[in-house]
Amino acid sequence: MSNPSRLGHLLGIESLSREQIQSLLSLGTSYAAPGAPQRQTTLAGKTIITLFFENSTRTRTSFEIAARRLGADVISIATTASSTAKGETMMDTALNLEAMAPDAIVVRHSKSGTAHLLSRHLQCAIINAGDGQHEHPSQALLDAATIAAHKGSFEGLQVAIVGYLQHSRVARSNVMCLTKLGCHVRLCAPHSLMPAGMDELGVVDGQRRASLHYTLQDALTDADVVMALRVQTERLGDTPRIADAAAYAAQYGISARAMAFAKPDAIIMHPGPVNRGVELTADIADSSRSVILEQVSMGVAMRMAILHQLLGAAA
Amino acid sequence: MSNPSRLGHLLGIESLSREQIQSLLSLGTSYAAPGAPQRQTTLAGKTIITLFFENSTRTRTSFEIAARRLGADVISIATTASSTAKGETMMDTALNLEAMAPDAIVVRHSKSGTAHLLSRHLQCAIINAGDGQHEHPSQALLDAATIAAHKGSFEGLQVAIVGYLQHSRVARSNVMCLTKLGCHVRLCAPHSLMPAGMDELGVVDGQRRASLHYTLQDALTDADVVMALRVQTERLGDTPRIADAAAYAAQYGISARAMAFAKPDAIIMHPGPVNRGVELTADIADSSRSVILEQVSMGVAMRMAILHQLLGAAA
Amino acid sequence: MSNPSRLGHLLGIESLSREQIQSLLSLGTSYAAPGAPQRQTTLAGKTIITLFFENSTRTRTSFEIAARRLGADVISIATTASSTAKGETMMDTALNLEAMAPDAIVVRHSKSGTAHLLSRHLQCAIINAGDGQHEHPSQALLDAATIAAHKGSFEGLQVAIVGYLQHSRVARSNVMCLTKLGCHVRLCAPHSLMPAGMDELGVVDGQRRASLHYTLQDALTDADVVMALRVQTERLGDTPRIADAAAYAAQYGISARAMAFAKPDAIIMHPGPVNRGVELTADIADSSRSVILEQVSMGVAMRMAILHQLLGAAA
Repeated sequence: MSNPSRLGHLLGIESLSREQIQSLLSLGTSYAAPGAPQRQTTLAGKTIITLFFENSTRTRTSFEIAARRLGADVISIATTASSTAKGETMMDTALNLEAMAPDAIVVRHSKSGTAHLLSRHLQCAIINAGDGQHEHPSQALLDAATIAAHKGSFEGLQVAIVGYLQHSRVARSNVMCLTKLGCHVRLCAPHSLMPAGMDELGVVDGQRRASLHYTLQDALTDADVVMALRVQTERLGDTPRIADAAAYAAQYGISARAMAFAKPDAIIMHPGPVNRGVELTADIADSSRSVILEQVSMGVAMRMAILHQLLGAAA
Repeated sequence: MSNPSRLGHLLGIESLSREQIQSLLSLGTSYAAPGAPQRQTTLAGKTIITLFFENSTRTRTSFEIAARRLGADVISIATTASSTAKGETMMDTALNLEAMAPDAIVVRHSKSGTAHLLSRHLQCAIINAGDGQHEHPSQALLDAATIAAHKGSFEGLQVAIVGYLQHSRVARSNVMCLTKLGCHVRLCAPHSLMPAGMDELGVVDGQRRASLHYTLQDALTDADVVMALRVQTERLGDTPRIADAAAYAAQYGISARAMAFAKPDAIIMHPGPVNRGVELTADIADSSRSVILEQVSMGVAMRMAILHQLLGAAA
Repeated sequence: MSNPSRLGHLLGIESLSREQIQSLLSLGTSYAAPGAPQRQTTLAGKTIITLFFENSTRTRTSFEIAARRLGADVISIATTASSTAKGETMMDTALNLEAMAPDAIVVRHSKSGTAHLLSRHLQCAIINAGDGQHEHPSQALLDAATIAAHKGSFEGLQVAIVGYLQHSRVARSNVMCLTKLGCHVRLCAPHSLMPAGMDELGVVDGQRRASLHYTLQDALTDADVVMALRVQTERLGDTPRIADAAAYAAQYGISARAMAFAKPDAIIMHPGPVNRGVELTADIADSSRSVILEQVSMGVAMRMAILHQLLGAAA
């Protein structure tokens, strides 16, 4: 199984250059264009394994549809049904799967660094579909592509990322991706959910392109993009002064009133699944400014781009 | 994803005309014919998602095989592994899947009306694979096709449907389907399991073609077809005078003795899975009059017909 | 669905002749050869169902990849999601699946004899992927192919099979397969885990080609191949004088010290998943003598050979 990829693996946004990101966005956007062929043979004969140690409908399905649209075969492995229950290590599970000669393994795991670890020991392409509190690069790429579709360019855009920043791999990948592309990112959370130093992920070429904010008004004023993060409602009880979902919604939920701070043409994003009435009011989730379902559609296109660049024949 | 279907969706038997049913039966029967090609390219490049919020081996597998025989890709999603566990609404799950641009979603859900609800909000074709206590149209269609294969025509046939009529979507769809086709349907259950007014589902063109019966002798005498329904054995304890499976079997189980009331060439049907010794004695289930496995085979053919009519190119 | 196979089914090694085994090894080896095409159309249009009543990542995935490499469609059914939960018998589940006209069913079940039972009642090809304490023929075939790749021929090879012999379908199939091919098999276990008469499985043409051993030194001295079996660590507590995994490892774990008894070029095998530090020390599992991952790769190739011989067009 040779791997003629220019990228090798997709482990995180951190290791991608601005040019590599733009190349992926360009290819993904072409797959998302109206009239683009729904079926390709680019990856005919390739086998892709999705190996999910954490539950996910959306991401697993998105990669699976992307792979099949490119003509590849997909084998899905969810860990509750796997040998890890039998005492095998994660690495042995992965090495065993690799011995079956797949062309890529798409992996999600609750432990940060899993994808990097696999990439050091396996020969096939590794795609990080979320590793612990670390990165979720395909999410950041699809978010960027969705923003580009609405805003044209990234330069100078003000993007507010609101909510459960602590432990958020989506937030981390997005800060790195969007600041590399030229956006300024405003991180907004209660003090207790704001990880120390997260704005440092937004330092690009010595410039700090991320800032910390503690109120919606501060974060959203004149924003071009408002991205709400999913709340782990079951963890809210541990959060000082944010005792429950209602308290969270009152201070950090995106409502029409909050959106009044943002630019009139600001778009609203969410990685899903949405807790309606918590991160977003239902009317905002369903409003014409919401691009949440476009993110999902773009997700398939961007994952096609990722798979194509990793596994397709070199140009 | 244009949908050039003449049907649009398959939500239930209720909204199908006799002609639409006959057209589906005719196409399904051609797929079931000996020597029919096992593989088609009719739906090559199409993506079908099966979205099952209730467990099912048989129906999910049947749709999956049908779709693949027509050349389509299939993505299977079972809810225990889905985001609904994460607090997302059923509608948001469906809208997210639709955003990945499938051509059809085959849905099963414990709540009546789910398929109709989805059809009002989604653009892709919706196929009802069972919604609560409401309808199970592909089951009724495969049952009708199986009857046609044995009896030639429907006109004037006496069909006895026996057992757990309360809450039975299989019974409801069958009453509507078979009476539209010209059969008379005899509904047979203990008083406590007979839903009020179920015979009204069998009123066609002002004619009542369904009747209520409380003993096997009354229902089966001179019947052409005997269809036993699956018993929810775990619910039997709640049923007055039918305290357990043995009591049920004694009064409503189909045995050789019961079949003696029916016509000599009467066939025996069951939607499966069978509780041997409860709905049917084992010798009846395995007898030459049993067409239970033919129903399963016809199920694949009829689901090919459904998918073809919904997703195939317009003639 | 005609089945032009010369084998009909693959139920166990017991019913295979030496020539049939060699024919499978020869075909599998060709699929495993470097440069062999990764994708064939030999089984295009065929449908294969994997029906696993026991959990397995590796075997299920291996069969699935093998089937797809040959161009077949695969439907995977795991029982926790199946109708058996609804009270249907295993045979009814299988008959229902067969009614959907698959070309083969690959079955794993905790009950010995399941595959044989299905083969007597079903028309499609049955492939035993492990039945209780009885046989696991595809494992034995891939093990033999791996040995052949390293040792050239089987004649006169000394193969030590070490560990949990009691209830081991892997051991049983391997004893029969390797002795038919000309090896001598040394079975090594504590007295309490050595099943009575297991060496009789190694009687070929009136010659006993298997022997019983109770210490590693006795079993491994001058061995060409050392095969460790997986330990059911949760059962160890019931074993006299082998109270826990550490006690097992001290007496029967394969370490560098134990391997010193074997020939200098002896290879080390394990069917997986490995409990590191129990059956094998980690350094042995990862050593250059370990062919454990080659077994996995050969597994896909041998399962391609099995499927091809069972379902491919007659020559």
